[in-house]
Amino acid sequence: MPISRCDPDGVGVAGAIKRAGTSSPLAAALPLPLLHFSCPTTHRRPPQIKPPRAALAMAPTEAEQHPRKALALALAAHDASGRVTPIRISRRETGDDDVAIQVLYCGICHSDLHTVNNEWRTAMYPVVPGHEIAGMVTEVGKNVHKFNVGDRVGVGCMANTCQSCESCEAGLENYCSKIVFTYNSRDRDGTVTCGGYSDMVVLNQHFVIRFPDGMPLDKGAPLLCAGITVYTPMKYHGLNEPGKRIGVIGLGGLGHVTVKFAKAFGMRVTVISTSPEKREEAMEKLGADAFVVSSDAGQMKAAKGTMHGIINTASASMSMYPYLALLKPQGKMILLGLPEKPLQISAFSLVAGGKTVAGSCMGSIRDTQEMMDFAAKHELTADIEVVGAEDVNDALERLAKGDVRYRFVIDVGNTLVAA
Amino acid sequence: MPISRCDPDGVGVAGAIKRAGTSSPLAAALPLPLLHFSCPTTHRRPPQIKPPRAALAMAPTEAEQHPRKALALALAAHDASGRVTPIRISRRETGDDDVAIQVLYCGICHSDLHTVNNEWRTAMYPVVPGHEIAGMVTEVGKNVHKFNVGDRVGVGCMANTCQSCESCEAGLENYCSKIVFTYNSRDRDGTVTCGGYSDMVVLNQHFVIRFPDGMPLDKGAPLLCAGITVYTPMKYHGLNEPGKRIGVIGLGGLGHVTVKFAKAFGMRVTVISTSPEKREEAMEKLGADAFVVSSDAGQMKAAKGTMHGIINTASASMSMYPYLALLKPQGKMILLGLPEKPLQISAFSLVAGGKTVAGSCMGSIRDTQEMMDFAAKHELTADIEVVGAEDVNDALERLAKGDVRYRFVIDVGNTLVAA
Repeated sequence: MPISRCDPDGVGVAGAIKRAGTSSPLAAALPLPLLHFSCPTTHRRPPQIKPPRAALAMAPTEAEQHPRKALALALAAHDASGRVTPIRISRRETGDDDVAIQVLYCGICHSDLHTVNNEWRTAMYPVVPGHEIAGMVTEVGKNVHKFNVGDRVGVGCMANTCQSCESCEAGLENYCSKIVFTYNSRDRDGTVTCGGYSDMVVLNQHFVIRFPDGMPLDKGAPLLCAGITVYTPMKYHGLNEPGKRIGVIGLGGLGHVTVKFAKAFGMRVTVISTSPEKREEAMEKLGADAFVVSSDAGQMKAAKGTMHGIINTASASMSMYPYLALLKPQGKMILLGLPEKPLQISAFSLVAGGKTVAGSCMGSIRDTQEMMDFAAKHELTADIEVVGAEDVNDALERLAKGDVRYRFVIDVGNTLVAA
Repeated sequence: MPISRCDPDGVGVAGAIKRAGTSSPLAAALPLPLLHFSCPTTHRRPPQIKPPRAALAMAPTEAEQHPRKALALALAAHDASGRVTPIRISRRETGDDDVAIQVLYCGICHSDLHTVNNEWRTAMYPVVPGHEIAGMVTEVGKNVHKFNVGDRVGVGCMANTCQSCESCEAGLENYCSKIVFTYNSRDRDGTVTCGGYSDMVVLNQHFVIRFPDGMPLDKGAPLLCAGITVYTPMKYHGLNEPGKRIGVIGLGGLGHVTVKFAKAFGMRVTVISTSPEKREEAMEKLGADAFVVSSDAGQMKAAKGTMHGIINTASASMSMYPYLALLKPQGKMILLGLPEKPLQISAFSLVAGGKTVAGSCMGSIRDTQEMMDFAAKHELTADIEVVGAEDVNDALERLAKGDVRYRFVIDVGNTLVAA
């Protein structure tokens, strides 16, 4: 069984990165001859990439993985160094139920960083990250009626599920035990999935989301992971009702869209942060109604028992006790992060007030479409910083330090192209 | 402000305990002269107790606590020795909104044991436990229209709440921050409440539950705490739907009624226990559909991902990981016990499957009445062992060892009477 459909030798594709008017420093550093793809710098390109002979010669073992395949440019991590480099990967040919998508933008999620660095011990190198993918349909299989060539579409965290288990049948395929993630995941054909740090993807139509009119591809891309990750628990735990007060722990990629969704739902929002300097940003820019510095005992005491729910986006280990005290009776704390150490939770903190600690992971395809439509209606997008393909390593470094407001988005369409 | 309305000197009332045809060994052991109350051994007695002059003389300081008071016989713990002895306590006179109740039966809840032994560091001795009270109305205040003298009624864990906060207004007064528990709790008049190990109680009508026709007082009494404690989370977390599978950790006072309610809801029930010898009892007597020995890795593995919810009645510290694995995606583990040490919960255990750990505490008055009516309709009662007042200390000892199937109920009406 093939290990990966990514270039198994880890052979980089020099010259795959280009910014208008610049020469690529990455390309210069690579020992291989430049490859010249005929990729326009606009967001339109031919439906199928026809790689030159040289490219095929570079990755001969891939032929068995995707016998009817297309080749794509991508950025891949090859080890836990935290860096990505250009690579050529194979994609399966567009099947009857598939949609081929030209990737134009891809958000950089914090989980990309965890995977690239192999912090979760799950990396199957080479890893092509990216599950906040926005682009345009370039080809559709014969059974695809939902999408046409030229449609603006997105892909989130899921590339496949069994579509027959209890979760799938309930329309909650994000909890399918056979879920295949968009990258670094063993697909049903045995290959390892490659994500949206790549100029094209091929997906079963079920996992493709329509971009609503008016939703920009760049600022909308992060909603496909960050947006649905916060929207889902807000929906399923009743934390989407006007007038209710919600707390948000952590003001990063997930936190800032939580504030936006909560305001769009008509809720009152308290941002809870370790960083006093985020107050102005939280309240004036994002529209939060209140701000609590978690290390300030007086502020925490004053906020005690005021919140119907808390969306906890922190992935650092923390004592739950002071945060659970902020909840009203029957209040709910939703965990989205994955701290390495187990959480310490006093049963009394939960039992006395009938409180809940719940985890939530991504969201279903149906809910993702609903969320995108809701966001478009409310002109809700992520706050982003667009970076070129050559800046991704810098962006990953800055992300590790929390130095981004609030999501890096790679301009794949204009910058991940042949020199 | 008075400390307690229980006899402040801790003076026991010799001869308060009697069993037909026996002399009281407790009475013989006490140094005080026997008091002779004219209490019949049937379940009917005069609405108000007229204590003899000698009794008043014994507790002169109580007059200030309940200026218009009645005296009652009770069993109280005076220290953390784990034993109760007879005592005379004052009760407030029946106010305009009050109902006076002759206690006929009172269940022995595990929390009585915790409080008597001061395990929660909250005991305000002397402690008169008891919050599974069943009896008969002997007097009603002028504003009471819900109850008449002679009605069969019950009292659970609550004696008072503010009736104006968000929880109270939502009909969930069990989460009122000013809740006054039925015993060992500071009432709004400054006195400390005394529970149902006593021959009478006086309560605001709001906190009195009607015993439905056909519901026996003795076997119904434990439902007022154990019953509502399990019924509430089953109702509010959707764990009351026919066909769903529920797990029950621990087969004691709470666990056995969980099995009964789950079966009455039409659910499939798996009992999860450390004790293989409980299998027959669980499946043949209580009607559980399956039984899993928690220390048997094979059985636990086979049950993985099968349950929509788990009612966890254990009060011992335990690793949550193997139990959370039993839940289906979006499954819910409800905590009812209060282990001393914090629970260790891996965020991954919750996030990956969108699972919930929630606490639950008692239930509202409205839900308690609903639960009693549901139980009566389904002929659902607790399995009990009736003990006389003189056997309460033995019962507490046996309860500490888990030696009861499944609830001790004190026959207050026939045995907590004057010699």
